Amino acid sequence: MASVDHYLAIDIGGTKLAAAIVTGSGQVVHHREVPTPSADPGQERLVTRALTELAADVAGGLPLAGVGVASAGPIDTARGTISPVNIPAWRDFDVVSAVGAAVGGPGPRLIHDSTAAALGEHWLGAGLGSSALLGIVVSTGIGGGFVMDGRPVSGSVGNAGFIGHITADPAGEPCACGRTGCVETGASGPAMLRWARANGWPGHSTPELADAAAAGEAVAVAAFRRGADFLAGAITTSAILLDLDRVVIAGGVSAAGEVLLGPLREALTRDGAAAVRGLTVVRATLGRHSGLIGAARHAMAR
Amino acid sequence: MASVDHYLAIDIGGTKLAAAIVTGSGQVVHHREVPTPSADPGQERLVTRALTELAADVAGGLPLAGVGVASAGPIDTARGTISPVNIPAWRDFDVVSAVGAAVGGPGPRLIHDSTAAALGEHWLGAGLGSSALLGIVVSTGIGGGFVMDGRPVSGSVGNAGFIGHITADPAGEPCACGRTGCVETGASGPAMLRWARANGWPGHSTPELADAAAAGEAVAVAAFRRGADFLAGAITTSAILLDLDRVVIAGGVSAAGEVLLGPLREALTRDGAAAVRGLTVVRATLGRHSGLIGAARHAMAR
Repeated sequence: MASVDHYLAIDIGGTKLAAAIVTGSGQVVHHREVPTPSADPGQERLVTRALTELAADVAGGLPLAGVGVASAGPIDTARGTISPVNIPAWRDFDVVSAVGAAVGGPGPRLIHDSTAAALGEHWLGAGLGSSALLGIVVSTGIGGGFVMDGRPVSGSVGNAGFIGHITADPAGEPCACGRTGCVETGASGPAMLRWARANGWPGHSTPELADAAAAGEAVAVAAFRRGADFLAGAITTSAILLDLDRVVIAGGVSAAGEVLLGPLREALTRDGAAAVRGLTVVRATLGRHSGLIGAARHAMAR
Repeated sequence: MASVDHYLAIDIGGTKLAAAIVTGSGQVVHHREVPTPSADPGQERLVTRALTELAADVAGGLPLAGVGVASAGPIDTARGTISPVNIPAWRDFDVVSAVGAAVGGPGPRLIHDSTAAALGEHWLGAGLGSSALLGIVVSTGIGGGFVMDGRPVSGSVGNAGFIGHITADPAGEPCACGRTGCVETGASGPAMLRWARANGWPGHSTPELADAAAAGEAVAVAAFRRGADFLAGAITTSAILLDLDRVVIAGGVSAAGEVLLGPLREALTRDGAAAVRGLTVVRATLGRHSGLIGAARHAMAR
């Protein structure tokens, strides 16, 4: 009987740290997560301990075929370090050494969380069979990742796919990143909500806004249409640059389903760029484990 | 004594068809080119004969280790066909079969000419050592190609890198492609020339315009600055999406040198995107053989 390979996958985000054992065929057989300690700069040890204890606990002394670490960015795959915007306690934190020391086994492989999500969807989800895939995570922010010919595109040090911060509207709103009119200023959950409220919609959350749009409330519909226009511009640019054949939309806002995807497909058709003609736009299917599954896949490819 | 591997490289463009024997170390040992017959739709055989005769002549019965074909786009690597915009006689022309039948040896590998140029520069030119390279050809049109981790990025069917047709100015001029404000409408040689003449500059060619800008003539300087702004926007978007570490500028307009590159580097610095901070922008070094050298390199990687 063939033995089953076990991979340790870790997913580091601003709100939670997750770890899982993932088999060589992609089954998540043991999963645990803890809230990311909200630690100020200087509290590096506190956050590091939360991560290494979680990793050691989930690994549990199991012989590991590989270790994959997905992290919010910016990351630096050349140095094995991470500086997640939402975890100020870690700046140039040597996550590869820390996790390696905590669990032993083969040296961890580091990947951006958005790229890991795209890689997971390509392996076992809505990206299966694509030869030029863009995965987009639409949530409180907007991230993305490319998988070309089955390989994740990392760029020089791992930060490729930063699609929320390409310019959608040069005359648009200032963005938290310091530039103007980024995709994120129009298409993130909070951006759509802000626009709807500024135009008189009385609700307070993105799921409520999606329900209102599904019920045909004009301002809510318009907010999703506007978000879809921002996303469509970013997808068109990406499709022209990378000759994409598929886009997978993940993240909390993608739960809105056709309320977002309908206007998105319309906007892409209206634009008329040749590069989007053969493109299909679909919802992700792996849910919240996509980053862990992608991290495990990345560990296999070493 | 080790034998030398010989590769047949072909470069198909709207004005010339080129072929060469390239050694395994990248030396161009036999090179020939002919004008592309200007043939109307329906004259497929005429153009095909020019290509196959050229290929057979340069191959000369030599045992080939591989065959690489670079072509103007659109191409379709999945089907082995090309439909170059500027060669209307060929639509879905099966170039892989035609060249394969003409020269024998291993089946030809097809690559977009702009991607081939980037791959050539990465192998032996100004892109050497880059892990995330964008090559841009600035000429009568604007093309581009990406080389990530040493591999050319082809996209789903080979047309990745089409950087001349991402949107630089949504409120800009109509483009020949049917969309509006493409990079090419501001940064190609003819676009800069057209803008300069519309603003009172009396000359007639891009080299003249470069000389005038080098001599400090205000309108000529402004034309290159404007072109540089368009290019800078495209480079910034590409750098954010692909975490680039280097950009190599090739093509006729790049002969202008610092007249173009100076304002381009300034525009990138002024934009302030984090993704361009570590980016270097340099001129190509392989000259007109970059596409042939890249095609040969592509044939080696099979």
